[in-house]
Amino acid sequence: MLLHLSTWSEVEGFLSRSKTVVVPIGSNEQHGPTGLLGTDWLCPEIIAHEAQKSGDILVAPTFNIGMAQHHLGFPGTISLRPSTFIAAIGDWCRSLSVHGFEKIYFLNGHGGNVASIEAAFSELYAEASFARQPRGFACKLKNWWELKGVTALANSQFPVGHGSHATPSEIAVTQWAYPDAIKTANYAPQIAPTGPIREAGDWFEGLSARLTDKQKKLLREFDASIKEGGAKHSPQSKGFMDKMKGFFTTE
Amino acid sequence: MLLHLSTWSEVEGFLSRSKTVVVPIGSNEQHGPTGLLGTDWLCPEIIAHEAQKSGDILVAPTFNIGMAQHHLGFPGTISLRPSTFIAAIGDWCRSLSVHGFEKIYFLNGHGGNVASIEAAFSELYAEASFARQPRGFACKLKNWWELKGVTALANSQFPVGHGSHATPSEIAVTQWAYPDAIKTANYAPQIAPTGPIREAGDWFEGLSARLTDKQKKLLREFDASIKEGGAKHSPQSKGFMDKMKGFFTTE
Amino acid sequence: MLLHLSTWSEVEGFLSRSKTVVVPIGSNEQHGPTGLLGTDWLCPEIIAHEAQKSGDILVAPTFNIGMAQHHLGFPGTISLRPSTFIAAIGDWCRSLSVHGFEKIYFLNGHGGNVASIEAAFSELYAEASFARQPRGFACKLKNWWELKGVTALANSQFPVGHGSHATPSEIAVTQWAYPDAIKTANYAPQIAPTGPIREAGDWFEGLSARLTDKQKKLLREFDASIKEGGAKHSPQSKGFMDKMKGFFTTE
Amino acid sequence: MLLHLSTWSEVEGFLSRSKTVVVPIGSNEQHGPTGLLGTDWLCPEIIAHEAQKSGDILVAPTFNIGMAQHHLGFPGTISLRPSTFIAAIGDWCRSLSVHGFEKIYFLNGHGGNVASIEAAFSELYAEASFARQPRGFACKLKNWWELKGVTALANSQFPVGHGSHATPSEIAVTQWAYPDAIKTANYAPQIAPTGPIREAGDWFEGLSARLTDKQKKLLREFDASIKEGGAKHSPQSKGFMDKMKGFFTTE
Amino acid sequence: MLLHLSTWSEVEGFLSRSKTVVVPIGSNEQHGPTGLLGTDWLCPEIIAHEAQKSGDILVAPTFNIGMAQHHLGFPGTISLRPSTFIAAIGDWCRSLSVHGFEKIYFLNGHGGNVASIEAAFSELYAEASFARQPRGFACKLKNWWELKGVTALANSQFPVGHGSHATPSEIAVTQWAYPDAIKTANYAPQIAPTGPIREAGDWFEGLSARLTDKQKKLLREFDASIKEGGAKHSPQSKGFMDKMKGFFTTE
Amino acid sequence: MLLHLSTWSEVEGFLSRSKTVVVPIGSNEQHGPTGLLGTDWLCPEIIAHEAQKSGDILVAPTFNIGMAQHHLGFPGTISLRPSTFIAAIGDWCRSLSVHGFEKIYFLNGHGGNVASIEAAFSELYAEASFARQPRGFACKLKNWWELKGVTALANSQFPVGHGSHATPSEIAVTQWAYPDAIKTANYAPQIAPTGPIREAGDWFEGLSARLTDKQKKLLREFDASIKEGGAKHSPQSKGFMDKMKGFFTTE
Repeated sequence: MLLHLSTWSEVEGFLSRSKTVVVPIGSNEQHGPTGLLGTDWLCPEIIAHEAQKSGDILVAPTFNIGMAQHHLGFPGTISLRPSTFIAAIGDWCRSLSVHGFEKIYFLNGHGGNVASIEAAFSELYAEASFARQPRGFACKLKNWWELKGVTALANSQFPVGHGSHATPSEIAVTQWAYPDAIKTANYAPQIAPTGPIREAGDWFEGLSARLTDKQKKLLREFDASIKEGGAKHSPQSKGFMDKMKGFFTTE
Repeated sequence: MLLHLSTWSEVEGFLSRSKTVVVPIGSNEQHGPTGLLGTDWLCPEIIAHEAQKSGDILVAPTFNIGMAQHHLGFPGTISLRPSTFIAAIGDWCRSLSVHGFEKIYFLNGHGGNVASIEAAFSELYAEASFARQPRGFACKLKNWWELKGVTALANSQFPVGHGSHATPSEIAVTQWAYPDAIKTANYAPQIAPTGPIREAGDWFEGLSARLTDKQKKLLREFDASIKEGGAKHSPQSKGFMDKMKGFFTTE
Repeated sequence: MLLHLSTWSEVEGFLSRSKTVVVPIGSNEQHGPTGLLGTDWLCPEIIAHEAQKSGDILVAPTFNIGMAQHHLGFPGTISLRPSTFIAAIGDWCRSLSVHGFEKIYFLNGHGGNVASIEAAFSELYAEASFARQPRGFACKLKNWWELKGVTALANSQFPVGHGSHATPSEIAVTQWAYPDAIKTANYAPQIAPTGPIREAGDWFEGLSARLTDKQKKLLREFDASIKEGGAKHSPQSKGFMDKMKGFFTTE
Repeated sequence: MLLHLSTWSEVEGFLSRSKTVVVPIGSNEQHGPTGLLGTDWLCPEIIAHEAQKSGDILVAPTFNIGMAQHHLGFPGTISLRPSTFIAAIGDWCRSLSVHGFEKIYFLNGHGGNVASIEAAFSELYAEASFARQPRGFACKLKNWWELKGVTALANSQFPVGHGSHATPSEIAVTQWAYPDAIKTANYAPQIAPTGPIREAGDWFEGLSARLTDKQKKLLREFDASIKEGGAKHSPQSKGFMDKMKGFFTTE
Repeated sequence: MLLHLSTWSEVEGFLSRSKTVVVPIGSNEQHGPTGLLGTDWLCPEIIAHEAQKSGDILVAPTFNIGMAQHHLGFPGTISLRPSTFIAAIGDWCRSLSVHGFEKIYFLNGHGGNVASIEAAFSELYAEASFARQPRGFACKLKNWWELKGVTALANSQFPVGHGSHATPSEIAVTQWAYPDAIKTANYAPQIAPTGPIREAGDWFEGLSARLTDKQKKLLREFDASIKEGGAKHSPQSKGFMDKMKGFFTTE
Repeated sequence: MLLHLSTWSEVEGFLSRSKTVVVPIGSNEQHGPTGLLGTDWLCPEIIAHEAQKSGDILVAPTFNIGMAQHHLGFPGTISLRPSTFIAAIGDWCRSLSVHGFEKIYFLNGHGGNVASIEAAFSELYAEASFARQPRGFACKLKNWWELKGVTALANSQFPVGHGSHATPSEIAVTQWAYPDAIKTANYAPQIAPTGPIREAGDWFEGLSARLTDKQKKLLREFDASIKEGGAKHSPQSKGFMDKMKGFFTTE
């Protein structure tokens, strides 16, 4: 059940059955020459939207802009400051709490969000702790790649060069959902554009620089396989989706 | 061209042709017994996504949560405080400005957002004014119903009971895009749920209370016509879409 | 009854008769070669102070600095950022609410304030909405030129070149109250000083640039008539004042 | 020269002669049974407005709401939080600095403002210190009762019961300026109204409770003498005014 | 070299040799019946102070209050909100950056701080990213228990019941440094006091509840061994200290 | 009793005897060629720690960074902005209040902190005043040099050149506690380093510039006397300490 395609009275009805709401959350940032800028918010959105088809799950609109300041050197990246992010997550949760939701489940698609999401939860709880009052709701954070079985799946399908940013598995999810937006690019060594990127060497590397030649080859082959047709691609993606759906009802 | 389905290098390419980006912005709030909670952010998203199919327009992800605190008595409504909203719009604009965008065009779907969006623009400009430096970009706000011809179209198609919240025209746009999510409801007088709604009498009225019997009848007929089939509905919606597309290239 | 010239026990007495307080609010910003910098806060102050002479109205001190960042290129302009403005209006209202005022009526003298004043109201209400508690007071915004009859009066007295900034009618109000501060200036075309003015072409124009020669002539004649004596000026201003007074007791 | 009764070009002219601007600042709060709620902002306003008649001094609009949360139990008191106060003083100073003012002189009328005004200055300077850049302007704080000679004058005219809140000397200044607003009250012991006053015993006492019988008698006599006529009162007030005027040109 | 026991000119001299400064950071919160409230900030302070004795390391004052809102049900716990924590870390770093420090190394003693520290770093970097300017310094976070060899040491000395809060190894560090403050307690089951602790079941458990009987026995024996004399305790603690010292010069 | 060397149950026990907690607060900033950077937070810490040895006093961890932006030109200085300082003091007090402390006593070591500490208190109280609720605790500020007898002691021991920054008495306190960190320096005239120091001429002067030759000689002699041995130094410092201890139990 998608909250934004429901009426308020339908949500009222849902609340009589469950007090949990799922919020897909991610980031809009560069994902290398072939990854979509929206990858990190599209993935949890795709997964949650799939999951609610087979379970009585309520999915809120997607929180689509996150912690991406270190990618601002790449056109199309949009970032909040942590202080803004914390304030916004706070207002989402305060709103949902007004209606009686007691468990707000953030399905996250961006590793860089984790710290600030947890800080946001702590900010919310601190209000209650200082007031000596119960908060009335609990916030949960789950990265979609940490759902049970996803890592094993990713390792079996993409045994080499998976990495942690612009990974083949997250690209696979977006390709499954948006086959018309599959990109190709020349992976010959290229220099990332100069810009206000912070401490690039520590945690960010332009995709072309990070990948070994072997990894690049793998990714190109993966791209190619996707474009050959849905049949080849489908089993991989379907595996992801099945895992996703399972988790919401079992966890 | 949808920013989130593009790569950073595609956006870099777009910037060599244009410095303008469109940001659909709205609100997630109750829209009466049959209107979708997402109506106010879905409409500008639908319109902008349509428009970019026929013009070289770049559409950013949708800013989907806005000023809806007065609707928090209705389950599913999610609201930011104005201060959070201003901070978030600021970070979106600062991010887009880093890439060289000079005109950030907010296509708005919620009248209640107007004041705070303008306050957000002023907050951004004030930074530059205090620093005696050029801001480097201009922000524009346009409500989709103020696009040239839309009002005339709405008046001709829905001559009675259009109103300003949960209007037939905005419901029409969402029905065109999400025919599977068309709702029906019993419009017999019903009481809105009690809750922390502010100054309800001044600017908010439960849809069933606001509408005259004649208006309710009209809306039910409209609902009915939608459900009879796409053919009957299509001309109306198509009219909207054509107007929308036209504006982006002429304004 | 002017709050600042009253004692706390007199205000306590007023509260037994009425729960409404009027707050004149405006801006301190350039008003062209002959308009006073204080025009936008002086007008609502003058009008409210006049009105309370003939009605049992309580007028708070004037909120004299508003949204004027776009005029900071002109010496003497003082502006708050919207975030500061919202915080300050909030504290005024919270203070007045502590005493039991239930209706806080902002009589506004600056069009540029409207958006941020409404954002400030929304910020206050959101506190209550998130807390599921009644706010306990209502805020109202009224621009003095929207009082019943004022536009008609302005149009009849200044049929040409009224405009929306540094209007003849607002200049008339200040001239009525501060005849010693009536200015003259050479309206020959002159260039506005350069400075950190934002998007000047869109919503701000130096007065001398905006006015047609005919309008300039009219304004000069008006200026001249004021300086000839109170008799000639008085009927015009008196008309304004009478309208103002009427509104507070009838609205 | 009063800034709000000047045009921007007159202020531009002033800047060619001086880079200093005076900002009267105070508080709007209870001042006992006969003191005006506006006493603390009216005093510096009155003094500064007098001073500019005989010297080339530029006086900005009055910052009329200050630190008065501890008086909120008394109707009519309006207070900012320190954080709001700091933000607002910051924006005033940033605005004035844009025009080239290098010395911003706050003439203060409320002892309770001192700490937060200094915190506000420090907040402004810290911006520059962190940026390793010159601030470009200096802020000065002066309480009007610390002007050279004022204390001696106050002691000679009101040798008993001067105190530090609702003092006879500040009441004298407002009575000089607003003779129509002189109040009388029964000083027989009365209980201050209950309310959210903080730590009343430490730094606040209802005027009637603080004063000894002798002091009350003195104040009543002073009140009486004022009401007998301007002649008797005038010498006292004139002494204050003369001192005030002298300071601006010599300090 | 301890910054707070140095003069500014000694720090100036240090800067000619190194641009790195170490900031011990922790939390002040309950650590069960025998752990000190200061454990989490004392540990990194103790370790850093030891390390600087044998290496040319500059250690700043300790940032002693962190993220502990979930422990506020236990007397003596002091917590910042994440927003305050982020602001404070920001000002520390901005200050140190003014002097020319290019690497600010936070040696952390509280797992609950990690998310908000990283959010604080991101907030600092975002300022630079939005301004398209280099930040000029890098922030590093290291938990002292992640220093090379510490985990192995902890596992060998405390093979059972190490846990993650109020661990034997962190208690050992404080006991080494403050032998006079070694506590004993009756570990018989006792109920944690009720209070505004958030989601206690999820991530917090009163120490007596969390520990198995075997673990409690071990900890008591450890306590006992400490109290028998420094000789027995010394080798364990010395091992920790040697590891700590090594890291600063090799990493 | 030192809070950070206590367990939560010991603090719980203390609360059954007393509701007061002492928080040493200061600043970390340059103190001339021989004064320690930590002088202003070390002094109240030293004094409070001494005092609790002979009285049932609870001393919280030291708030060690304060208002020092004007000293940021000198390496090693660390400063908060007032807004950060106010937020942090607020969270400390809110935390301590949760446990039931009713009197939070800030023993201050830096004159420059006074204004912002008082602003912080006012911010806390304003929350309660706006909410019409009792705050539940009182904050007290005491500068250690204002403890009864300290000024007399300082004047008798350092009759010349005491000053108000980097005073001989505060240096004496740190020398008593940290004899190994006693510094010597060449007091021949030297120029303070250039930097973003604000309004240096008004309230800051490099120590070597501020002192007369006579004062420098005295301070050098004092330094010398300390270094000759503890016997000579001891009586002076002991006098300070005795006074400190006395105050906590008598005030």
